[in-house]
Amino acid sequence: MINSQVPLFINENLETENFITGAEAHHASAVLRLREGTKIQITNGKGKLIKVVVTNISKNRIDYSVNEICELPKLPYNLHLAVAPTKNIERYEFMIEKCTEFGFSALTPVICEHSERSIVKADRLNRIVIAAAKQSLKAYFPVINESCKLKEFILQHKNIEKKYIAVCNFDDRISVNEVAELHKDTIVLIGPEGDFSNSEVDFAIESGFIPVTLGSSRLRTETAGIAVCHSFYLKSC
Amino acid sequence: MINSQVPLFINENLETENFITGAEAHHASAVLRLREGTKIQITNGKGKLIKVVVTNISKNRIDYSVNEICELPKLPYNLHLAVAPTKNIERYEFMIEKCTEFGFSALTPVICEHSERSIVKADRLNRIVIAAAKQSLKAYFPVINESCKLKEFILQHKNIEKKYIAVCNFDDRISVNEVAELHKDTIVLIGPEGDFSNSEVDFAIESGFIPVTLGSSRLRTETAGIAVCHSFYLKSC
Repeated sequence: MINSQVPLFINENLETENFITGAEAHHASAVLRLREGTKIQITNGKGKLIKVVVTNISKNRIDYSVNEICELPKLPYNLHLAVAPTKNIERYEFMIEKCTEFGFSALTPVICEHSERSIVKADRLNRIVIAAAKQSLKAYFPVINESCKLKEFILQHKNIEKKYIAVCNFDDRISVNEVAELHKDTIVLIGPEGDFSNSEVDFAIESGFIPVTLGSSRLRTETAGIAVCHSFYLKSC
Repeated sequence: MINSQVPLFINENLETENFITGAEAHHASAVLRLREGTKIQITNGKGKLIKVVVTNISKNRIDYSVNEICELPKLPYNLHLAVAPTKNIERYEFMIEKCTEFGFSALTPVICEHSERSIVKADRLNRIVIAAAKQSLKAYFPVINESCKLKEFILQHKNIEKKYIAVCNFDDRISVNEVAELHKDTIVLIGPEGDFSNSEVDFAIESGFIPVTLGSSRLRTETAGIAVCHSFYLKSC
């Protein structure tokens, strides 16, 4: 288990390296001013956590010796959010931060007909995920995919069994609360500020996506993303 | 019912005035460039909605004649959030925006022992509520109270039956999902970045507040506020 009292660091190459470099090492040496002998925790973001003791510190590198290796349990749900990027990217980033705190599996920015933004920097979003994951003590990091046109995304994911589209004006919808299931691969599509076009909704439904409602309020795109993620998180509580 | 296709404006003095002035009038004339004969909707934020036709437009004043008067149903839950202000006020504002989209009744910024911020401008928070309420088509606006010291808040609300405190490290907690009930006056206390002090938790519990958990993730203050509000909103879906 992750100890909330001990600083958490990230090393994606945990299996082969027993040192941290780069921004993580800088944070440890210059910001937290760690000393030799300090206990820290390191995760690879893929469920592995090691508890170590710092053996040597320089400005850009922290060496350590491993005390304990833990394999942490996976998230009890497998939620892939496919969310149109918002015009104001800060709103999207805030959504990613909140969803990381709750926990989710993957995010794909889907570019829709009514999207006012078609460029999203996955790198920057990844940095937000990592900061939020460290802050909320996660050993599994969600994957941020490169953006993708909506119809391509739909075609690529035709074979996923549990797939839903959050639509605003549609008569026959079930609640996201009813479809939030644990231990299933699930995709939820969320549209842009101007909503999905009718032809996009038709195409998704023809491809097996089931319309869902997030309740009677008209939610912004990023609020819808947070609401979907929290609905799954609540099921795991 | 609020029509999502017709612009929504606010007039707190709906009962006595048949015109809008100030920022709302400016928005109507300069931004939306409304014309005489246009249909608009106006709410007082207390459940009343009127459907009107614009009869006269000047830069700072819109006159109208009323076509229809509606009394909209109240929110099916009565949730008072008492949340410690965050160090970065933007996070708090984002929380208020998201909670307004879902719907809640009142917010009191509570100043705690570990709070890094003791000044909150209720005026500014109110402007965020109003913008979010317009955007998400609400006819009931949540009330933003002036900030209050935690212990004073607890003493003032001793007689509310359903009152909870979200605590991080506490053995005996029930899930917020179980306590989210409709049609009851409910208060949920959420602590600052450094959490409540032990004496604050003890004082709340002695005063009848029941400890609740928001799940196994370590959530930021503003994320906790959003999660609590969404839990109540989901019960109403």
